[in-house]
Amino acid sequence: MPSISAKGQAMPASPIRKLVPYSEEAKRKGRKVYHLNIGQPDIPTPEVAIRALKNINLNVIEYSHSAGNETYRKKLAGFYSKLGINVDHTQILITTGGSEAILFALMTCLNPGDEVITPEPFYANYNGFATTAGVKIIPVTSYIKDDFALPSIKEIEAKIGPRTKAIIICNPNNPTGYLYSETEILHLREIVKKHDLFLFSDEAYREFCYDGEKHFSAMQLEGVDDNVIMIDSISKRYSECGVRIGALVTKNKEVLSTALKFAQARLSPPGLGQIAGEASIDTPENYFMEVNAEYTARRNFMVDELNKIPGVYCPRPKGAFYAVVKLPVDDSDRFAQWLLESFEYKNQTVMIAPASGFYSTPGLGKNEVRIAYVLKIEDLRNAMIVLAEALKVYPGRV
Amino acid sequence: MPSISAKGQAMPASPIRKLVPYSEEAKRKGRKVYHLNIGQPDIPTPEVAIRALKNINLNVIEYSHSAGNETYRKKLAGFYSKLGINVDHTQILITTGGSEAILFALMTCLNPGDEVITPEPFYANYNGFATTAGVKIIPVTSYIKDDFALPSIKEIEAKIGPRTKAIIICNPNNPTGYLYSETEILHLREIVKKHDLFLFSDEAYREFCYDGEKHFSAMQLEGVDDNVIMIDSISKRYSECGVRIGALVTKNKEVLSTALKFAQARLSPPGLGQIAGEASIDTPENYFMEVNAEYTARRNFMVDELNKIPGVYCPRPKGAFYAVVKLPVDDSDRFAQWLLESFEYKNQTVMIAPASGFYSTPGLGKNEVRIAYVLKIEDLRNAMIVLAEALKVYPGRV
Repeated sequence: MPSISAKGQAMPASPIRKLVPYSEEAKRKGRKVYHLNIGQPDIPTPEVAIRALKNINLNVIEYSHSAGNETYRKKLAGFYSKLGINVDHTQILITTGGSEAILFALMTCLNPGDEVITPEPFYANYNGFATTAGVKIIPVTSYIKDDFALPSIKEIEAKIGPRTKAIIICNPNNPTGYLYSETEILHLREIVKKHDLFLFSDEAYREFCYDGEKHFSAMQLEGVDDNVIMIDSISKRYSECGVRIGALVTKNKEVLSTALKFAQARLSPPGLGQIAGEASIDTPENYFMEVNAEYTARRNFMVDELNKIPGVYCPRPKGAFYAVVKLPVDDSDRFAQWLLESFEYKNQTVMIAPASGFYSTPGLGKNEVRIAYVLKIEDLRNAMIVLAEALKVYPGRV
Repeated sequence: MPSISAKGQAMPASPIRKLVPYSEEAKRKGRKVYHLNIGQPDIPTPEVAIRALKNINLNVIEYSHSAGNETYRKKLAGFYSKLGINVDHTQILITTGGSEAILFALMTCLNPGDEVITPEPFYANYNGFATTAGVKIIPVTSYIKDDFALPSIKEIEAKIGPRTKAIIICNPNNPTGYLYSETEILHLREIVKKHDLFLFSDEAYREFCYDGEKHFSAMQLEGVDDNVIMIDSISKRYSECGVRIGALVTKNKEVLSTALKFAQARLSPPGLGQIAGEASIDTPENYFMEVNAEYTARRNFMVDELNKIPGVYCPRPKGAFYAVVKLPVDDSDRFAQWLLESFEYKNQTVMIAPASGFYSTPGLGKNEVRIAYVLKIEDLRNAMIVLAEALKVYPGRV
């Protein structure tokens, strides 16, 4: 039997997937499991998108342009310009989800063995893309005591070595929900300019900013046009995770023409998803206002409830729909498994994502979990009660 | 300005794309361009697929399982079993087109620097996937005088070295249209068994076999369950190139679990395409009979017309909808460009794919082109007249 590749062996398993069998077992036992572990919003997809699909008028579902349909890219450029991101359609490459945009960025800019710096905790799938591209993620730790703010310029610069080619940030952040300020983005500008690095800015959660805060995109930075690559996705913006449509956006011509060659090899991004994406740009403003109000209410409720539990600390993040929460437990991996395997309160339990999977520095995140507030408040209320009860009796409580 | 990666620089441009500007220029001049260069069929997508999309009943377009929807995989396993390919849904990984299945297979099975043998001419995008994965394609030449039959076991074995990990075939073949016989597939079985190699069998054109010939899948081979990985796609089968749905199918458990980790990193395959794909399995048998009759007629017409032109030789391939044709020209790249740039007959011209891009041995294919018979016979008739006229006056005629 031929052996699989070293890269295949090194591919990380998702930190959440290993809990799935336990969650399935709990459900088989008839338990209600509140899923606080995933980023699959329950928010309805905009009607304009569903209507566009229902009205589909195609005889042949053909390949699109490898960079995506021109009509879509033009409309998307218009969407960006309203956000202060000034690009034209030739500077947009439509990708198969934000995932493919990250992979294209890594493949285009980094050689195997090169390094990309990212604040940790970070989106765990960056590990998979880095393994695929054969590159190394160098973490620079951010801390819950600072609400996971961007580490200082000095701390980031200390991580820069001869193989450093890029910095990747996720803004607003998954898993912390932290929204980087304009000042922080300007600090990154300084660093990438000084050290001639790429700045990959994953803005999949851009539309989820609360408390009246404004998102400042890395694409709004001046004087670093050739350094900045924006990663975008419509998964969260329009609750269309399943369509697999994202974008790689940059003013760097060489990056664009090279990423296009990777795009041409895979022929085209999903055509039906592009139809949904193009139609979604007409989503009325009140959709976003309602979604924002809903998430703000969920966040406020959840953060308040969590901070009432003895020994628990939850920051009040200004973006996305996640929070990394400190719990009085010995090991959040063990705790998460125990919740599903051994605990129930009135025949209910909760599924949470241990934070260790979002750190690459060994040992970090052992007393932290990521909680996604993607449930309705009624469900969140029960989930918080269950969590509080669980922490009362968990044998590994510290 | 930070530099792009060596991999990015090495990414091959598509052999056809470089002709696109010339084709656009010809159209701007008001010329009718017959596209014999692309594999985008004009055959309508089955009604069942379009209907499923029109009847879409989703509130939220959610992520699917990373391996694809279970209902789809189960139905697909049933489809395969009717072809004599006995797999269950756990042995199927739904991918973003056949493209992603090839990339997952390479990433899962080969280390950077490893080699994969393939008969040339071969599907040019294999080059892009090989570059992405950092692996080397080792060609074993097949010849137009043999109708591009599989090279002998001896010739293939001569290419096997210490870094050889796999053989990839495309059956029926793009670009040659050659349909490998059961005997040839059995020869490959012998080789991969003896040398402990993977056999990647790209069967995207399985449904396009003519003259009553039956397709023999590598998945039907006995005793090599751990060696064989089938690459499938619904792009051509149902004329759904744009949905980007394919599959990686294997009985090798280690390959499956490893490929799944690559799949989990990118979350899920396109959800809307999966809806189309699942519905398409109910395509009535007469759809395929009509398509087969249409392509047979097109092929026969085209092959006959081509062989009437002095100096031209076209085999009569038994599969896919391509043929590699020998032309009396000095350089088919130059000829293809000249057709678009400098030639017209009654204000018409043709676009063809120079075969050099399908060979990796330098110098081969210079007097060959790939022609796709994806046009209606009326259009093919005009295209053949134009080609014959062009060959009369082409300055580089040999």
